[in-house]
Amino acid sequence: MRSSLQHPARLVPLAFLIAIAIGTALLLLPIATAGSGGTDFITALFTATSAVCVTGLIVVDTPTYWTPFGQAVILALIQVGGFGIMTGGTLLGVLISRRLGLRTRIVAQAETRTLDLGEVTSVLRLIFVATLVVELTIWAALAARLHWEYGEPLPLAIWNGLFHAISAFNNAGFSTYSDSLVGFADDWLFLGAIMLAVIVGGIGFPVLADLRRRLLHPSKWSVHTKITLLGTGALIVTGTLAVLFYEPVADGTLNPLTFPERLLEALFHSVMTRTAGFNAIDVGALRSETLVVTDVLMFIGGGSAGTAGGIKVSTALVLILAVWAEIRGEADVTAFHRRFSRDVQRQALTLIVLAMIAIALATLHLLSVTTFSLERVLFETVSAFATVGLSTGITGDLPPSAELTLVALMFVGRVGTITVATGLALKRSQRPYRYPEERPIVG
Amino acid sequence: MRSSLQHPARLVPLAFLIAIAIGTALLLLPIATAGSGGTDFITALFTATSAVCVTGLIVVDTPTYWTPFGQAVILALIQVGGFGIMTGGTLLGVLISRRLGLRTRIVAQAETRTLDLGEVTSVLRLIFVATLVVELTIWAALAARLHWEYGEPLPLAIWNGLFHAISAFNNAGFSTYSDSLVGFADDWLFLGAIMLAVIVGGIGFPVLADLRRRLLHPSKWSVHTKITLLGTGALIVTGTLAVLFYEPVADGTLNPLTFPERLLEALFHSVMTRTAGFNAIDVGALRSETLVVTDVLMFIGGGSAGTAGGIKVSTALVLILAVWAEIRGEADVTAFHRRFSRDVQRQALTLIVLAMIAIALATLHLLSVTTFSLERVLFETVSAFATVGLSTGITGDLPPSAELTLVALMFVGRVGTITVATGLALKRSQRPYRYPEERPIVG
Ligand SMILES: [K+]
Ligand SMILES: [K+]
Repeated sequence: MRSSLQHPARLVPLAFLIAIAIGTALLLLPIATAGSGGTDFITALFTATSAVCVTGLIVVDTPTYWTPFGQAVILALIQVGGFGIMTGGTLLGVLISRRLGLRTRIVAQAETRTLDLGEVTSVLRLIFVATLVVELTIWAALAARLHWEYGEPLPLAIWNGLFHAISAFNNAGFSTYSDSLVGFADDWLFLGAIMLAVIVGGIGFPVLADLRRRLLHPSKWSVHTKITLLGTGALIVTGTLAVLFYEPVADGTLNPLTFPERLLEALFHSVMTRTAGFNAIDVGALRSETLVVTDVLMFIGGGSAGTAGGIKVSTALVLILAVWAEIRGEADVTAFHRRFSRDVQRQALTLIVLAMIAIALATLHLLSVTTFSLERVLFETVSAFATVGLSTGITGDLPPSAELTLVALMFVGRVGTITVATGLALKRSQRPYRYPEERPIVG
Repeated sequence: MRSSLQHPARLVPLAFLIAIAIGTALLLLPIATAGSGGTDFITALFTATSAVCVTGLIVVDTPTYWTPFGQAVILALIQVGGFGIMTGGTLLGVLISRRLGLRTRIVAQAETRTLDLGEVTSVLRLIFVATLVVELTIWAALAARLHWEYGEPLPLAIWNGLFHAISAFNNAGFSTYSDSLVGFADDWLFLGAIMLAVIVGGIGFPVLADLRRRLLHPSKWSVHTKITLLGTGALIVTGTLAVLFYEPVADGTLNPLTFPERLLEALFHSVMTRTAGFNAIDVGALRSETLVVTDVLMFIGGGSAGTAGGIKVSTALVLILAVWAEIRGEADVTAFHRRFSRDVQRQALTLIVLAMIAIALATLHLLSVTTFSLERVLFETVSAFATVGLSTGITGDLPPSAELTLVALMFVGRVGTITVATGLALKRSQRPYRYPEERPIVG
């Protein structure tokens, strides 16, 4: 116990386990559920894990199954989970740069350009202020829109606005509407506010801190900020184009719509894969090819040390840039006139391979205990791992062992990537001798 | 044209293109088809490509659609393709070791342990002899079994034995039986001979040459031989266990069988994924989870510079060992007291990522022009890329654009991996300056 507390990377999973346990206990209270007698253990555990891990997968209908008390518990768990992962990720990032800084001064200097805040309290305060400012702004916008445009009574509009502002900034994807945001499918203002909150929350605090200090001096941004912004933009455009390309066919979900409506739907779906999980479109009706593209986008996810999930944009870009350098015959992997260390390349590779293994094992288990097709099962497991929360609708029909698999996958996806990344960055044991080099044939 | 001939890695694709063109022309002859008027262009192109690339995917039934002349053409194309890829892969391997040897003497010494044959003619002769010995042995065994056990008339038994001996050693998967080898599902001797030919042909010539010289001195085997043998064994066991685990359930393909029958079926299916493509089981009736495991095994494929396809066992192991080293915090990637260079790690990564991209693009196209499910389409594209030839039965029902996609995928899978691997190993341009190092956040 003592050694697990001493290793800082293990504090995050421990804190999340405690939050999930408390959340499960609260949701098991009879006053949390609309029916009599309270809910069952697996439903409470699944919902608490989904909320704390800001995933948004649900086995029961949020607005009708849970009472206002239950919904408030879910909202509190989302806020705790989102704030926890943002601060945890940021502080572990600071820690890594400090530790590496003790060894190689150049790396540390480059690293502190990404985030050179002095104190833990300072980080906590800044994240708290950022959360508060964004959530209050979006809350006001959503509540006003719900009251004046959709005629919701003011208290209800305030509650729904608050719920969706918190859920969006924390990339949680929970909604107090049974059909998520399908009712706002042609509302640029409402969906625009949601998208803004999702992107700001999911881009990661190191990027926000960098932008806050040097917004008007892009050339001084850290390479992490640059590749995260570039990658996020490219992924959003790719997702939008894919939906616009695949879905307007006969029988496709976008077929009956005008072009502006199609564009909004495609853009919104694409942004939600980074990894918010609201839907304004019937995900279960999407074509297989759209689901596959969405799988890839969800797997990559959002920015590091933010509320988004997935392996992270920067991780994917490090690997893509390594492949690109190899194709061009370059010895160094570079971006924006900066070189990436060999270490960080192998860490990115390891993270991605471990993520694929976790998803593959969960997919095999779900396939073996259900009759659902591979496209639907894979979509579900990727969505759970990357804490997206989108679903083709199979979540509520899974047997208990599959639900528990998703619980484990959400937890591993939420805290596993950051824990593994920190562990790999801090662990380094050199053998006292080296073996002779030999080249196996490749390909 | 001159520059493409000068670069040795480009000779292999060029030779394969010529063989495919000649094969297509021969199959277009009216005497090649049983019906009147000859076949259409796409069918001839698809079949010739599948034969030359030793894949085995078919859009028409080999024994009834093609005449004995047509079948003889297919058999000749298989032999040319198998011999071509084995010699091409081996010679390019020798070339790489020579070129690298000019720069770093240590690497070259380690490399020549894998294959230190002096001359091109010597390599050709050795491969020719190996092919002849194995094919004649298996031919005799199969023909005898077909004649005495199954009562086939001697000329027919000799023809069928020859066809399957060549098809098996070259990992081609073409069969003169409409149901492939389902009729031999409980015949340990017949399937055993096929498996032996498949494994020997698919393990790769560098391993065969190493074993031939030092069979009784395992400690002196090259690291390439060791990891290829170890990896092949592990993959065969994994595949066998997966089929035994998933298929005996109610409605599963192995459910009605006794345990020895199940074991034979599972073992045979597993060996065929390295990447021979015969089937003694109804692949279209396999469960989704078995198909997914098979996808992974097919993607990895067989040994380098042999008749097998896929990204190759050694490529996969280099990447897995890199991940394992990272998890243990080791700076070096090692196996059997040997260290792998950084270069070969990044080459393996690049090969795998490019393979995944090719398969993903083909999968998206097939999904968008057909109504087949993801599990069946993905199985088909992985089978085509890794030149396996197993199919859930959709090959004959694809629209022309999908057939052409598979033609391209078979070609890229067959000659692309070896061409890319050679190109990467020989290409190396160092910039005259290095950028400062900076560490993005990963995970
Ligand atoms: K989410
Ligand atoms: K094959």
